Amino acid sequence: MIETIEAKINNLHVGQKAEFLETISEPRIKEFAKLSGDYNPHHIDETYAKKTKYKKRICHGMLLASFFSKLTAMYLPGTGSLYFSQTLNFIAPAFIDDEIKIHGEIMRISHSTGIITIKTKIMRENTTLVMGEAKVLIP
Amino acid sequence: MIETIEAKINNLHVGQKAEFLETISEPRIKEFAKLSGDYNPHHIDETYAKKTKYKKRICHGMLLASFFSKLTAMYLPGTGSLYFSQTLNFIAPAFIDDEIKIHGEIMRISHSTGIITIKTKIMRENTTLVMGEAKVLIP
Repeated sequence: MIETIEAKINNLHVGQKAEFLETISEPRIKEFAKLSGDYNPHHIDETYAKKTKYKKRICHGMLLASFFSKLTAMYLPGTGSLYFSQTLNFIAPAFIDDEIKIHGEIMRISHSTGIITIKTKIMRENTTLVMGEAKVLIP
Repeated sequence: MIETIEAKINNLHVGQKAEFLETISEPRIKEFAKLSGDYNPHHIDETYAKKTKYKKRICHGMLLASFFSKLTAMYLPGTGSLYFSQTLNFIAPAFIDDEIKIHGEIMRISHSTGIITIKTKIMRENTTLVMGEAKVLIP
């Protein structure tokens, strides 16, 4: 477990990293479906999923993306920061009971605007599942 | 309420639109904090929020983005589609009890790849809160 930190621009440096693990449990997928209203059968219907390319249910991409929200808000740069933008490229799916690693690395720090650019990535072992770039503002 | 549809590339056309309303209730913000692990005080701490620019708690940006997941998976292009990418520009915050409109419009349809490009937007009355572009695949 890594520690939550408060976002302070002078404590940050380019190349700074943070990562943590999450498990894609079945209740999490159900909760995300309920919260978002996304009941796509790819995520919630086992019979449907068996007939797809992946042969089983997959995690909502946007549930994976929600861990980037945790990454930026809690660790890199930390609490008090605000989302400015995020790009998301969904490369491979996560399945139920997968353990995934959420990883971020600071690419740029703008002292004039307070905007921090972070390369964000989700991996399952050596497989990249999601890649993107977050920009967050330290007010 | 609009009807859920099954994604079929031949039923889609450029300029096709879908929209629906959501309310940012307090329990939703709490549930998203729990699900994502994003306990940024901007979202959950009223005392902290009073001292910020916005003077009150704001909705997680990624909770707003989760409604794009509903938009693409349920209505435009519909069930069976899979997320390929999404860009998110967080322009203004949503507050507790705000009613917001989630809107999508098809910009491009690629029959060779099955990828549909959708302009996605969240509004509160005339204020744009989130803008972005979704690409979804119809397998």
